[in-house]
Amino acid sequence: MKIGVLGAGQLGQMMALSGYPLSNRFTFFDTTGNPSADIGHTISDPNGQQLSSFLSQVDIVTYEFEHLPIELVKQVASKKPLYPGVEALGVCQNREAEKSLFDRLHIPVAQYRIVESAPELAEACDELMQQGAKAVVAKSITEGYDGKGQAVIRASEEAADAWQRIGHSRLIVESFVDFVREVSIIAVRSRSGDVAFYPLAENHHVEGILRYSLAPLPDITEAVQQQAERYIHQLLDSLDYVGVLTLELFQCADGRLLANEMAPRVHNSGHWTQNGAVTSQFENHLRAIQGLPLGSTKATAPTCMINIIGKMGDAESLLRLDGVHLHLYGKDERPGRKLGHINVVADDLPSLLEKVRLISTFLPQAPEPLFYCDSSY
Amino acid sequence: MKIGVLGAGQLGQMMALSGYPLSNRFTFFDTTGNPSADIGHTISDPNGQQLSSFLSQVDIVTYEFEHLPIELVKQVASKKPLYPGVEALGVCQNREAEKSLFDRLHIPVAQYRIVESAPELAEACDELMQQGAKAVVAKSITEGYDGKGQAVIRASEEAADAWQRIGHSRLIVESFVDFVREVSIIAVRSRSGDVAFYPLAENHHVEGILRYSLAPLPDITEAVQQQAERYIHQLLDSLDYVGVLTLELFQCADGRLLANEMAPRVHNSGHWTQNGAVTSQFENHLRAIQGLPLGSTKATAPTCMINIIGKMGDAESLLRLDGVHLHLYGKDERPGRKLGHINVVADDLPSLLEKVRLISTFLPQAPEPLFYCDSSY
Repeated sequence: MKIGVLGAGQLGQMMALSGYPLSNRFTFFDTTGNPSADIGHTISDPNGQQLSSFLSQVDIVTYEFEHLPIELVKQVASKKPLYPGVEALGVCQNREAEKSLFDRLHIPVAQYRIVESAPELAEACDELMQQGAKAVVAKSITEGYDGKGQAVIRASEEAADAWQRIGHSRLIVESFVDFVREVSIIAVRSRSGDVAFYPLAENHHVEGILRYSLAPLPDITEAVQQQAERYIHQLLDSLDYVGVLTLELFQCADGRLLANEMAPRVHNSGHWTQNGAVTSQFENHLRAIQGLPLGSTKATAPTCMINIIGKMGDAESLLRLDGVHLHLYGKDERPGRKLGHINVVADDLPSLLEKVRLISTFLPQAPEPLFYCDSSY
Repeated sequence: MKIGVLGAGQLGQMMALSGYPLSNRFTFFDTTGNPSADIGHTISDPNGQQLSSFLSQVDIVTYEFEHLPIELVKQVASKKPLYPGVEALGVCQNREAEKSLFDRLHIPVAQYRIVESAPELAEACDELMQQGAKAVVAKSITEGYDGKGQAVIRASEEAADAWQRIGHSRLIVESFVDFVREVSIIAVRSRSGDVAFYPLAENHHVEGILRYSLAPLPDITEAVQQQAERYIHQLLDSLDYVGVLTLELFQCADGRLLANEMAPRVHNSGHWTQNGAVTSQFENHLRAIQGLPLGSTKATAPTCMINIIGKMGDAESLLRLDGVHLHLYGKDERPGRKLGHINVVADDLPSLLEKVRLISTFLPQAPEPLFYCDSSY
């Protein structure tokens, strides 16, 4: 099957690497003018003039990037089967629509308000803080990515300045959640409605960029895993979703989960599945969109994904370590850029954490690897 | 690193799929006029006129196919680093040279003679049978592949006919070994001389085509594994070999191993390592030839490789089974053609064998999966 992918970054490239063994071939359509996928065929076309040529080369279309012009995506969907659909993409492009969906499905989220001016922002800050929030986060409704277009506000006096800096006409203001850790659940739904769930991963971000994901988690109870599965299952069914969906959550001190946001695609926090699960998120996404049975999402060993950001580090020392799998994207070094990731696998959590600590010393600027799931921490 | 590959079949394609995550990119040079690799860039050039263009596009060269014109390979080696080297290829192209090397290194083989006429062939048959062989196998010295150019002879009266049919001027005649099973060992040697060994696999051929490989084997003693390792280690060192080498062996009823033949490349009997070992043979070959540390060759679970020959079978039913990994080569169906393989993984041997039996029912013309390592058999 010939698969068209909207977006042409590392997620698309890794999807293609998983799809070759299924006899899939890939054509990428890049709207950014800056594609990095270097496998199959890439059409880089920021003006959308080669869309029909792209569509004529593929049987079905998926996306690996959600910051796509929605009109273009609608055009695609009118010509070829598109998975996941336009609705899922639309919801994920708009924080307000996303929160409304969570509300409608009774998926708990942090308290929030929608505001349309600096005074409204100040008022919302006061209101949320009166209800217990120590701080709030103001975010643009659209086009947020990796912490951009956001501001943390600790007192309503800061609201005017934050409004100015964000520079959007409609913001969402959320109570800052006093969480113990960030987790994510990745699930996949097939064309026939079958659903499979990966175990929750613990994620560590620095300045909005994911640095570590660890799974499976020994300190997640069956009840919490099932709660996360129920939430994402509701999202999948309500969107008649086909493919991989990611739901990022906060876990509170009492174990409770609050939904943060979702991504309608394979996700950085699911890269551990390439070496730590029976079937990777990439393969399962491809199985789902072409109507094949889903593969097992079972974890095979304690695994940690470590992003390589900005500078490559010492690949030779890394490869000398047992259980290290390197996944490079073929990109040049640049501050803050995701150049690749490492998946490291071990027999048990203590030896995994020991390896992760060692690996972090080979990576320039890697943050200290401290995990909530580490009971010795 | 830009890697040139001589040969452009499925082995090259799988090598490339393993090399992308190491930031490798691939150019294939095909001398058959019939390339199937569909990744990176392929130059199909049976007359060798585009060799300099190929060489200008790559940093180092390897091969995935040993039936290459040796003069062309020498030209390559004079221009770019070539791993494994010309000598290894030369030895593997010539059964006589190969047997001499085994003899020189005291690696036991079946008794054999070299003959240059039909009467000499008849005489060799008589001699070997007097020494106990129930039958002999006559093979052309060069260009043997997958059972072609061979004849089994049960009485010296059949020699003239066999000589005629094989149609070569120089043959090797080997005593037919009364083996209990065929096994193979795959090893990899780095540029700095480090060596790593995969566990022995049990292989089943039908009409010279591999159908099943199973590893690791519960009924191989540590002593037998180490014997195989010593043999292949001697071969690797004596050829100053860099990359993956495969040694096919017969195991006799008393446990003893006799070398059959070797292949200077990644091998069909090592495909199980893609899903059943920490590092696949493809990744380790690439690590070796570019001077990177070797990865662990440890098996992670009982695994069976099942070739898909001639007809595709029911991919959907296959993918429904837990632990099944499909590896298709993107080829059209044709009798006797390798279209892909399945790697199936299980927690223990009995459940692996049960899965293999089930899988064989989904594949047209799959032989009955009977394994020597199955104690219930």
